[in-house]
This record gives sequence, C-alpha cells and structure tokens, in this order.
Amino acid sequence: MTLSRQKEADLRESFARQSLMRTFSAELSELAAGRVEVRAPIGPGVLQQHGFGHAGLTFALGDTAAGYAALTQMPEGAEVLTAEIKINLLAPARGQSLRARGEVLKPGRRLVVVRASVWALDGDTETEIAALQGTMVPVLPGA
Amino acid sequence: MTLSRQKEADLRESFARQSLMRTFSAELSELAAGRVEVRAPIGPGVLQQHGFGHAGLTFALGDTAAGYAALTQMPEGAEVLTAEIKINLLAPARGQSLRARGEVLKPGRRLVVVRASVWALDGDTETEIAALQGTMVPVLPGA
Amino acid sequence: MTLSRQKEADLRESFARQSLMRTFSAELSELAAGRVEVRAPIGPGVLQQHGFGHAGLTFALGDTAAGYAALTQMPEGAEVLTAEIKINLLAPARGQSLRARGEVLKPGRRLVVVRASVWALDGDTETEIAALQGTMVPVLPGA
Amino acid sequence: MTLSRQKEADLRESFARQSLMRTFSAELSELAAGRVEVRAPIGPGVLQQHGFGHAGLTFALGDTAAGYAALTQMPEGAEVLTAEIKINLLAPARGQSLRARGEVLKPGRRLVVVRASVWALDGDTETEIAALQGTMVPVLPGA
Repeated sequence: MTLSRQKEADLRESFARQSLMRTFSAELSELAAGRVEVRAPIGPGVLQQHGFGHAGLTFALGDTAAGYAALTQMPEGAEVLTAEIKINLLAPARGQSLRARGEVLKPGRRLVVVRASVWALDGDTETEIAALQGTMVPVLPGA
Repeated sequence: MTLSRQKEADLRESFARQSLMRTFSAELSELAAGRVEVRAPIGPGVLQQHGFGHAGLTFALGDTAAGYAALTQMPEGAEVLTAEIKINLLAPARGQSLRARGEVLKPGRRLVVVRASVWALDGDTETEIAALQGTMVPVLPGA
Repeated sequence: MTLSRQKEADLRESFARQSLMRTFSAELSELAAGRVEVRAPIGPGVLQQHGFGHAGLTFALGDTAAGYAALTQMPEGAEVLTAEIKINLLAPARGQSLRARGEVLKPGRRLVVVRASVWALDGDTETEIAALQGTMVPVLPGA
Repeated sequence: MTLSRQKEADLRESFARQSLMRTFSAELSELAAGRVEVRAPIGPGVLQQHGFGHAGLTFALGDTAAGYAALTQMPEGAEVLTAEIKINLLAPARGQSLRARGEVLKPGRRLVVVRASVWALDGDTETEIAALQGTMVPVLPGA
C-alpha cells in the first residue's frame, strides 16, 4: 500500500530533522504503509575497533526504520517514541553500506510492536547482520 | 579494583580505534575492573527529530561501556563482540551530555552478561534515560 | 515503605487467582512498595530435560514478581499487563527452590519499566540464575 | 527438509523428559529442520488473574519451540541451552489452546539466533499473541 502524499512529505521532513541521520549520510530509501527502509554508507567515521561498522550505527538505522514504519500507520501529526528495542547481531557490518528495513508486527493505539532487519552490502553480496524487535509508543497530537 | 597499566593502555587504544566514538566526541571517563564509564556531548550532529539526543547515540554509548566493562575481565589480547543487547528508554536525552556506565553482571568463558545505564546531564540535573541488558562474546587470542 | 492493608490484600487476592502460581506451588514471600518477592519449589513437574528447573518456571516467577512490583505503585483497582520482557539465563536452576525478586526501575503513567532477578537455593547456597528487564502497561480502572 | 529418523527420535525423547511440558500437557506437533511446533491447552491450571493463559505458559512454549528448532540443526548428541530470550506480548492468551512455532534465524557454532511466534486458538479463530527473539547456546557432546 502506498502512503498519501501528505503523509510521505511529513515523514521525509521528520527524517530530515534527525541530525544523527545526516551525520551518518543516511537516507530514507523506501516508504510504504507499515514498511520503511533506511540506507547509509559504512563510512570512515562510523567504525568500531576492528574496522567494521559500529553496532551503534546498525542499531540507529534499524531503530529509525522501525520507528518510521510505525509512524506510517499513525494519524497525521502523530509522533512515535522508542520505548524499548532489542538487537541480535548476526554478523560483522562488513562492506560499503547498510540497509535497514523496519516493519510493523502489531499495530496498536497504545503500543506498536515492530521488527527490523539490517543487511550489509559488500560488493554484490548482501548479508543479514542484525535482527531487532521492539516497542514504539505513539504520541498523538494534543495528547 | 584497579586495572593493570597494560590492560588500561590496551583498552584505551582499542577505544581510540573506534571512529564512531571520535565522531561522537566520546571519551572513556572511568576504567575499573568490571565497570567502565563513557561520556559524550549531546552535540548538534547527534539529535533526533525533536532536538533531543538520538536513541542511536544512547545505545552506542551504553553498548560501548558494557563491552569495555566485559573486556576489563578478559585475558590480554582478547576482544569482545556484542551478541545481543536490549535497551529500555526511560526519558528523553535532554541536556548537554550523556554518561553511560557499563557493568558485568555475570562473567563467563563463553558469554558475559552485562548491564549499562545511561544518564543525561542537564545543567546540575542528572536523569537516568536508559537501561541496557545484553550478552558479550569473548574472542580469545588464537581462537 | 510498607503497603496499605487494602493494597496488600488486593495484591494477595490477585496472586491467589493466578492458577499457574498454584500449579507451581508459588507464594508471595515479600510485598513492599516497588518490590515483590515470589518463591516456588523446583518440584518434579517443572523440570527441563536435564532435570533442572525449566526456563519457563524461572521466567514465570520473574515476570510475576516484576508485575506485582509495578502493581504496588498503581492506584486501587488498577491492573498491569506485561508488554514485553527479556530474560538472560545466568546458570542452571539447580536446587530445591527458586526465589524471584521484582523491582520498579522507572514508574510511569503509560509504561512501567521493571527488573527482576531469580536465585536458585541449593542447600545453603544461593545462586543468581536469571536477570529480567521489561515493560509493564498499567490498566487503570474505568479505562 | 525432513529430519533423520534418529534425530527425530532423539528430539522426541528429549521433549518427553521435560516434566514441565507434561504438566502443561504440551506436545511436539511439528518437527522439521530448523522449525518446530509445540501445542498445549489453555487448561484450568495455567491461568493468570483474569482467566487468560499466563505469560509464563506462552513463554515456556515459545522458548521450547525455539530451542528444539535450534537443536534440529545440531549434530547428534548435542544439546542447546537458552542464553537469553525476549518476548513481546501482542494480545491476551484467550481461547482453548496455544500453538508455538520456533525457527532458526541464524545458525552458528557458538550461538544460534532464534525466533518464535505463539498463537491462541479460540474456536475457529487464531490470533498471534507473542513474538520471541533470542539466543541458544549449543552444548556439543564431549565439550
């Protein structure tokens, strides 16, 4: 399902206000109802001590993709906050870039349960490097 | 308990190799056996859409503090990897800087269970903003 | 801090309605504001395949202790539901009985963040076997 | 992919030794490589205070399905232990029985990342009530 133009514009504007995403040169690469994708390069400023992408980068992209996936299903003017999220790291973040895809597992008025997966792109190879599962809290306008 | 000079030097060198920590202007502010503290400013490049510190920053500091806490108890030359970690966000990251403290809950040869807490410093007020619990995997030299 | 007589009576009555706790011969061994303890024997009907207490027993006691700890801080007539909880298993559930202690880490109107620890009692030795961290959702009367 | 007869017999024998599963009248309803299903009635002895199935039951079935899913991919004589697992509860366990399906997300020599889903069957309606994500640790024969 596609999003309304207004909803898509709102989400893109919200994403653009996240300065950490700019620091990571991240972009919203897909926006659909209940599913959002975020991509970012594994650049020289986001590494851990062995030269792979830092778990903090992987987490930030997965959490952001999951949060915007939840937001696609909220009424206009709503926001979401991460209440909690858990990440299992499956493989090192080795390669040129990361792709995170967030999905809504269970929508709700008070809580939205989300999942995200993160892949590392190394040349032509894509490897799943992380699985996230968590809870977003809707903040409705006027609440 | 204090660390040996060699162990402390190794940990500081490892931390210095984490370019994400440099990007965050983070520093190791305490290093003791089984307990490590990391601090970073809530600078203009690490924010979410409402102007607070991004959950990705909070996670990265908590995960890093927890990982080095585990590493303080490993033999020389060892490394640790995050297998999984869960974060509960307790309050917005509002203020000038964050302080993350990692601790070892249960040491082990195959798995080390860790916890971390993160506080936001806003003027004279310090607020706990996140609690993490996770698992680190030791990578022993020669393994 | 001690609970009011009415609050304590309400909690004990709620606990008594949990037939799983009766199946486990579990009892509320401590009730204080923000802290609750539950004990149960490691009986012949709650084991896993190696003869230790099953992780399902450990989880059930930790989750229940954490839930009632959250409930001690709610207004009269409220209930709590577990939204999510994570358990790290630290050691086998070996011995005669388990003791779970739940605590409130962060109270809240919409979400209550809780922790629990579970110990196994084997003769005179007490070993921490699990650490839980999770989120309870208050259900207020009339909501 | 189907399992060898020997492997299937080993898993069924291991499951039969779990006295908690007998207490829950649980049965292994499907066994395939990397995927296992466990079912149990929501009987009178497994309820929480509102008369729904207890989260401890839901967790125990999900954890067990996930553990045996991991075990289907291990060499003969191996065992697995739950290192950690996280459960998000999506809806009350309302109905006559529960069905838990465990799957391997990422196999590994040292750690196996697993997921499980749990559904409640109420008459002809099946509702997903829980999502689990966790880590199993293989214990190899002779280790």
